[in-house]
Amino acid sequence: MKINADRLLNDLKQLRSFGATGPGVVRLALSPVDMQSRRWLADRMTDAGLNAVIDGVGTVFGRSSKSGPALLIGSHTDTQPTGGWLDGALGVIYGIEIARALAESDATHHLAVDVASWMDEEGTFSSFLGSRSFVGEPVDESILNARDREGLLLRDALANAGLDGTPRVRVDKSRHKAYLEPHIEQGGRLEAAGKSIGVVTTIVGIRELRLRFKGQRNHAGTTPMSIRRDAGAALVSFIARMDEAFSTLADADTVWTVGRIDLDPGSFSVVPGQAEMYLQFRDANAQRLNAMEAALATLVSEFNAAHKVTVEIIACDQPEEPVVMDSALQQHLASAAEALAPGHWERMPSGASHDAQVLAHHLPACMLFVPSIGGVSHDFIEDTAEEHIVLGCQVAANAAVAILQDLWERQS
Amino acid sequence: MKINADRLLNDLKQLRSFGATGPGVVRLALSPVDMQSRRWLADRMTDAGLNAVIDGVGTVFGRSSKSGPALLIGSHTDTQPTGGWLDGALGVIYGIEIARALAESDATHHLAVDVASWMDEEGTFSSFLGSRSFVGEPVDESILNARDREGLLLRDALANAGLDGTPRVRVDKSRHKAYLEPHIEQGGRLEAAGKSIGVVTTIVGIRELRLRFKGQRNHAGTTPMSIRRDAGAALVSFIARMDEAFSTLADADTVWTVGRIDLDPGSFSVVPGQAEMYLQFRDANAQRLNAMEAALATLVSEFNAAHKVTVEIIACDQPEEPVVMDSALQQHLASAAEALAPGHWERMPSGASHDAQVLAHHLPACMLFVPSIGGVSHDFIEDTAEEHIVLGCQVAANAAVAILQDLWERQS
Repeated sequence: MKINADRLLNDLKQLRSFGATGPGVVRLALSPVDMQSRRWLADRMTDAGLNAVIDGVGTVFGRSSKSGPALLIGSHTDTQPTGGWLDGALGVIYGIEIARALAESDATHHLAVDVASWMDEEGTFSSFLGSRSFVGEPVDESILNARDREGLLLRDALANAGLDGTPRVRVDKSRHKAYLEPHIEQGGRLEAAGKSIGVVTTIVGIRELRLRFKGQRNHAGTTPMSIRRDAGAALVSFIARMDEAFSTLADADTVWTVGRIDLDPGSFSVVPGQAEMYLQFRDANAQRLNAMEAALATLVSEFNAAHKVTVEIIACDQPEEPVVMDSALQQHLASAAEALAPGHWERMPSGASHDAQVLAHHLPACMLFVPSIGGVSHDFIEDTAEEHIVLGCQVAANAAVAILQDLWERQS
Repeated sequence: MKINADRLLNDLKQLRSFGATGPGVVRLALSPVDMQSRRWLADRMTDAGLNAVIDGVGTVFGRSSKSGPALLIGSHTDTQPTGGWLDGALGVIYGIEIARALAESDATHHLAVDVASWMDEEGTFSSFLGSRSFVGEPVDESILNARDREGLLLRDALANAGLDGTPRVRVDKSRHKAYLEPHIEQGGRLEAAGKSIGVVTTIVGIRELRLRFKGQRNHAGTTPMSIRRDAGAALVSFIARMDEAFSTLADADTVWTVGRIDLDPGSFSVVPGQAEMYLQFRDANAQRLNAMEAALATLVSEFNAAHKVTVEIIACDQPEEPVVMDSALQQHLASAAEALAPGHWERMPSGASHDAQVLAHHLPACMLFVPSIGGVSHDFIEDTAEEHIVLGCQVAANAAVAILQDLWERQS
């Protein structure tokens, strides 16, 4: 069974034209151009022989007319505010191409692949809305209250998109026996190692916190250094201690990021009276995440005992725990990768979040990565070599066949 | 000659009512409430026997009917966006009270004190607009192009205030022989030392720079720490080195402040690709300021040679050089302070900028400080003990008499 490389690349390029901005794409969830692209996607699914719908949260779902067991292949086609052309899109078009390729071969045309483009993976309104809705997580509260950055309510955006009253597609556990999400790596690890394919072992867990430092706002000219309670300077010194503490706990894959710093009031002439930072850390190991959290709490206590500026953790997002990919599915991906790119694939954690982590709680799930040029993602210049795009699709297709044959055997 | 404490305090409290906001004042330059307060001020000057005008840039100027030599007493009555009730206002009301007190005594009623409230010391549109205009600095370019934070053009604000075509008051060097600016300290030094009066030696010089760090924006989950080019982390480590370098150059009065930090794009999940900081440093010694500037340039070069993130100085405001106060005038203030508060005064630099630094380039100038409670200024809760307000005015009044008698003697 062979995928059609030209058809695959052509569809990816056509999808890119919806929201194209320079080399990148701006296709925010539920925006007019996102909805146009979804109608185009539904048409491509129909052409591929799938029964396509856009469901009540905007997920495009193509159901194979073949009876199960079915492999579900999905990802997302909404983008970041400054998004790349392949982030998410790759996996959805892989799914459509694999469904087409399976149908074209006598040996595989009985196999069922359903394809999904989940709504709002990127969290324009509410992260993973489509996949969460699909597995039956309660999303009605998000739909009632979530807003985008401009303050538009999700429920209004859904109504504007014409989705009011449209039914939501739900997982059918008697049919959906496995989930595969092909995706770009979004990092530089495969490229640096000279590999073409990544087989994901775990989607890392995430902790997100905001820390607030409180000192005394004062005149930057008249307040001697010795009596200042500079919240900004305290924040800077806290980061140095934190880096030290996290370094002793980390392994090579542990990451932590201070993504935002706000000093108040934020002018040349005023000693900051308050300072805030956004902190995120990720690891595949839940114990390590807990140890980092505990180290942070210790640092906060020590800092408050020793300094004229106080620090507190003011917000703490719901922790995302690491999610392990199904080992049998991983093995199918690994075998397909080794057959097509011997020695040029590796197992690796996913440092990024994906819809697969939502699906994995409900059915066996796996992910396949292709390299990102320069490791760049969430940026207009995000790209992947065409040979890697084509190879990744064939590996995914071969693995899909193996997974489905396995499911048939187990069923009979 | 004795000032009237009740009259002084009453006028200060009345002025406070224009723009009163909780315990503080919001009276931005050229705002409607600022113009109302200026008309009230002009009336108070008229009552004090001065010929009062609001000039073409909004400065309120009260000219004594006595022939010169004249002592000019001034400060400003515009405030910061979250201003205190005494910052600037104190010196203007002192001037009016001193003019009144001089006129009431036979021994002093021939002495000429002119009083000014200079427009926009705080830089809502253009810092020191009034004093700069008064000494003949070219302000027409500011008037053409300067805008406030909301984008309102200064020229439109002047027109809205009804000042179009109104003449601008200019210094008269045959008349104005000395300038005195009484002001709150805006710092905590006098309070900490248990002193009631400060005699200013120098208004410190200021350097303001913006530094930009350029790295590589990347996904915070998929980019290992080892290959990151995190502009925010680079900025944080640069500040630590800078603190070290500046500490070795500083004396007890040297101050430096990082007032603002911006990480781009500023979210949890993105390694900052760019980071900027606002840096200001102040010192009374021009050589030290230059040495700090040189140390910063060296740090920038060293950093760029050693790091994967680059740093550059992207903006550098016109340096403000330290301005020394006239020594004879300082001595008059010191004598008056020692007579009224023996042992409870000290000489000190001004860490803040003042209109006096503009005037000092054109006529002998001096400044007197009263303590700020808790060292707080540019804040609604800024305050000074009433006994210090009253004492400061009497010291300034006695010094004014001594200065004017000195000028009369030298003239005759």
